Amino acid sequence: MVTRLSHFFLRTLREDPADAEVTSHRLLVRAGYIRRAAPGIFTWLPLGLKVKAKIEAIIRDEMANAGAYEVHFPALLPREPYEQSGRWTSYGDGIFRLHDRKGADYLLAPTHEEMFTLLVKDLYSSYKDLPLSIYQIQDKYRDEARPRAGLLRGREFTMKDAYSFDYTDEGQDASYQAQRDAYERIFQRLGLEYVIVAADNGLMGGARSEEFLHPIAVGEDTFVRSAGGYAANVEAYTTTIPDAIPFDGLGEPVIFDSPNTPTIQTLVDHSNAHLDAPAPGVAGPDTADATEWTAAHTLKNVVLALRHLDGTRELVIIGVPGDREVDDKRVEVAFAPAAVEPATEQDFENNPLLVKGYIGPWSETGAVLGEESATGIRFLLDPRVVDGTAWVTGANIDQKHVHTLVAGRDFTGDGFVEVANVRAGDPAPDGSGPVELARGMEIGHVFQLGRFFAETLGLKVLDENGKLVTVTMGSYGIGVTRILAILAELNNDDKGLVWPESVAPFDVQVVATGRDAVAFDLAESVSAQLEASGLDVLYDDRAKVSPGVKFADAELIGVPRILIVGRGAADGQVELWDRRSGDREVLPVAGAVARLTA
Amino acid sequence: MVTRLSHFFLRTLREDPADAEVTSHRLLVRAGYIRRAAPGIFTWLPLGLKVKAKIEAIIRDEMANAGAYEVHFPALLPREPYEQSGRWTSYGDGIFRLHDRKGADYLLAPTHEEMFTLLVKDLYSSYKDLPLSIYQIQDKYRDEARPRAGLLRGREFTMKDAYSFDYTDEGQDASYQAQRDAYERIFQRLGLEYVIVAADNGLMGGARSEEFLHPIAVGEDTFVRSAGGYAANVEAYTTTIPDAIPFDGLGEPVIFDSPNTPTIQTLVDHSNAHLDAPAPGVAGPDTADATEWTAAHTLKNVVLALRHLDGTRELVIIGVPGDREVDDKRVEVAFAPAAVEPATEQDFENNPLLVKGYIGPWSETGAVLGEESATGIRFLLDPRVVDGTAWVTGANIDQKHVHTLVAGRDFTGDGFVEVANVRAGDPAPDGSGPVELARGMEIGHVFQLGRFFAETLGLKVLDENGKLVTVTMGSYGIGVTRILAILAELNNDDKGLVWPESVAPFDVQVVATGRDAVAFDLAESVSAQLEASGLDVLYDDRAKVSPGVKFADAELIGVPRILIVGRGAADGQVELWDRRSGDREVLPVAGAVARLTA
Repeated sequence: MVTRLSHFFLRTLREDPADAEVTSHRLLVRAGYIRRAAPGIFTWLPLGLKVKAKIEAIIRDEMANAGAYEVHFPALLPREPYEQSGRWTSYGDGIFRLHDRKGADYLLAPTHEEMFTLLVKDLYSSYKDLPLSIYQIQDKYRDEARPRAGLLRGREFTMKDAYSFDYTDEGQDASYQAQRDAYERIFQRLGLEYVIVAADNGLMGGARSEEFLHPIAVGEDTFVRSAGGYAANVEAYTTTIPDAIPFDGLGEPVIFDSPNTPTIQTLVDHSNAHLDAPAPGVAGPDTADATEWTAAHTLKNVVLALRHLDGTRELVIIGVPGDREVDDKRVEVAFAPAAVEPATEQDFENNPLLVKGYIGPWSETGAVLGEESATGIRFLLDPRVVDGTAWVTGANIDQKHVHTLVAGRDFTGDGFVEVANVRAGDPAPDGSGPVELARGMEIGHVFQLGRFFAETLGLKVLDENGKLVTVTMGSYGIGVTRILAILAELNNDDKGLVWPESVAPFDVQVVATGRDAVAFDLAESVSAQLEASGLDVLYDDRAKVSPGVKFADAELIGVPRILIVGRGAADGQVELWDRRSGDREVLPVAGAVARLTA
Repeated sequence: MVTRLSHFFLRTLREDPADAEVTSHRLLVRAGYIRRAAPGIFTWLPLGLKVKAKIEAIIRDEMANAGAYEVHFPALLPREPYEQSGRWTSYGDGIFRLHDRKGADYLLAPTHEEMFTLLVKDLYSSYKDLPLSIYQIQDKYRDEARPRAGLLRGREFTMKDAYSFDYTDEGQDASYQAQRDAYERIFQRLGLEYVIVAADNGLMGGARSEEFLHPIAVGEDTFVRSAGGYAANVEAYTTTIPDAIPFDGLGEPVIFDSPNTPTIQTLVDHSNAHLDAPAPGVAGPDTADATEWTAAHTLKNVVLALRHLDGTRELVIIGVPGDREVDDKRVEVAFAPAAVEPATEQDFENNPLLVKGYIGPWSETGAVLGEESATGIRFLLDPRVVDGTAWVTGANIDQKHVHTLVAGRDFTGDGFVEVANVRAGDPAPDGSGPVELARGMEIGHVFQLGRFFAETLGLKVLDENGKLVTVTMGSYGIGVTRILAILAELNNDDKGLVWPESVAPFDVQVVATGRDAVAFDLAESVSAQLEASGLDVLYDDRAKVSPGVKFADAELIGVPRILIVGRGAADGQVELWDRRSGDREVLPVAGAVARLTA
């Protein structure tokens, strides 16, 4: 049935919405695709719903090709399964919790690993039932602290989440690959550029974890890639560990006065003013050729507090080269599921041995940082702090630092930790050259969960030998509403949206112009003809609306092919308008119909 | 793509689920369509999801035919709109409420009238934009006190809810009729018998309200219908008011001793034992020919408490003929939005003039019931208590009653109220004869909301004269998951489900039997051929599963047409099995394919 704009539920807006931070949000609201209902929560208008349905249809198609079956879980779920997995607590403020009238605890599910696991446990019991891949397309809820950027980070959003179930690691690899391949096809069909990056594999102990990132400036994720083909999320980047340096020939640690140098920069300036230039080999590989003191010669000791799941709070000190920062995302991943907080004044008061601005691992009377030290505080080192590297760092005395403090000789840590920021030029861990940094938006994630949920929730099957084995799982997510927003973010110009044909809300927009009944009659019959040949047609049949307004609306809405029926109608001439290229061509009706239905 | 049972996510169960109260629940769980996730909350398995999608497709199709456009509102909504309409409070315990991390109030929407109203207000402003009909198919939430009967009364369920917007009553009537017609077509396509009954039009002040009930024994709703075509929900039934009776010739009220007669039956027995038989005309029309005292001669005064929205509690007394009960549903509707509670011992202690078991409207010293009486308690009468009817009722003295107490002469009420139960044989209000009672399940509701929400939320448009007029709305709901359950409830036998073709999860189930590769090869090629011709095929390709198990599964699943490929395969013979009739017919492959694709 031809959709007539005179009746269709649509109101385009000339003004940008006041709260729109990004192009997709601005255009989707202005062109009548979505409306805001609450922070991070949107109402879908007919145009938006049609695009969303087309994206979902592509996903369903490729899930079927990958042998996955569709199910649908409730959004409102009881606490128990999430209690068993520990996530009722670990989600913290990030989920919506509620009670029913009897006081029982419920949540609005942010993801459904527990439910998928329990469903399969409920129904399956033998290796013969596996492999199995099942998925849902479902509305999910996360109580984001800062919902923003329209659909890009909402509190109610639509996801496709798939899970695979295998009883061998080889089976799991095959299931993973099938979903990974399906994701590639989905993004190709959506015309959406993607980079597959290695991602952190989190707490679940799974083996592989990759994110599909769309490289885009408004992206929330930073990733690194090398010309040689390496790509990873910054959280997953691993430092190339330099070779250890022999201790031979290194001088002893020297404490020196360093008044008013609580920051790395003041310390470097002071050192260059008051110390001899650094001897070659006196510091780590990044500073080997330095002729003066630099931030890279210094060891920065950052005090953080970890809030563990059981509620306990632990101080931890991170030693990183002074030219690096502790990266928020890397530190979050490194210590998960504990939450990381800055240390407070109270923490320093409780630990008088920590002299703010002058903290270091060593003192003349013994170790100051580390579980076996005077403070007893866990001390973790950046992997670059290899044995034999010499550092300028705090002497644990107000206004004093120490230099030629050698790792592995004068101090050691309780272990290493990957939390320093990654910089352009850092080596790719696979030896494929230096990395560059880019911004991306996560559009998909394929992830070997391994046996965490199956173990926790007791999902086992009998294998060929009648032995109970724990099932291994994969998790595969695509953000449907996020993809829609990214497509809008990418496909637009200063006039409005320009949808790719695969997801456009209509195949053709027919615009009747003028006051001549001939034009409207022709537009009407052409619309019917196009619909009859299987195209989905939006017909702008509005009387008393100027061609200018109609064209502006068509450009804003972004149907890729527009057919104008106006002045030439009496002569059987119409105009075909390619929204993306802007090309307009006058041709006979039959020719236009043939082109559109080709 | 042919769906192969060897890989499909399905496990049929031989045992009924322990909590299944009704056939639909039992079979949908056993045949692998749904699983329980929490009380009244279900997970949809692939088979169930396919049937649900088919029902939704029929609804979408008929909504499009009725000129309605699809939108989609969030399930998670802020409090404000519901606060404005008063429903945040009036829903009581019936909805799920929650806070976000900032402490803001949210709810899981049970219906979306407010949001639809605000959306149209947000976008439309002129009579030229109307009429408009929009709808959604969406998961809704109600915190039912007693979720039961599987999908028939759940806490998370899918509904299609449509709303129409007009600026004239005539327009509203046309929009209403379009939806009503669409509902008839939907139920016809689903093969679902329905009765359209007049329904209570509630608090909104709308003009028309009709329910589509499916007549079914497990139905929660009682409705009445006459042979002459009247049909109504019991809540909407209106009593035919008898003519008033002249007071002339009626005796004076007589107080009489009636020890130990706190109930109607004891009072009737006592009266027959100790009083003269009732004189003709001494009571109302229902008792005109009685030769002895009956319950219909007595006036029962029932004390109830109303809990108003503002939290106040009010006692009210209802006077009904003693042979009728106060009907729970009718009383609920009559006093909505106030909640109705039984009176407590405390209420009687607070009102010592009310002598329990001997309450009446009259005493020798003046009126006892009514706003202007000694108690001041509001007193409402059944419409049958017309002027001139004479009653036996309490004398407000322990162990004493009064007879020949005449309505309109000796007592009056503060008004009339429709709360007495309806009985088979009661007259239809349209004069179409006596009614009979039947049970039904609500499957749809079309409802003229009128201007309540538009007024409350400020939805006005400019009319042809540039004058702001309030929009009038209609509300049209269909329970999608409920319909699925009713279809399962109706379409089954002792072997399992038998789906109508319009909603069956697959068009054909192909079953390969035996161990002969020829049979499996033929089944494979026939399945592919049927799929290629547009049918959705479930192919039972399981090796090492006996024909008996395969047939039992096919019968349980309920695909209406089954094709068995087994022993005759080598000769090109297959067996076509009609699940509903049970007919099985052996015929050549080509003939079977021709029949299935016809």
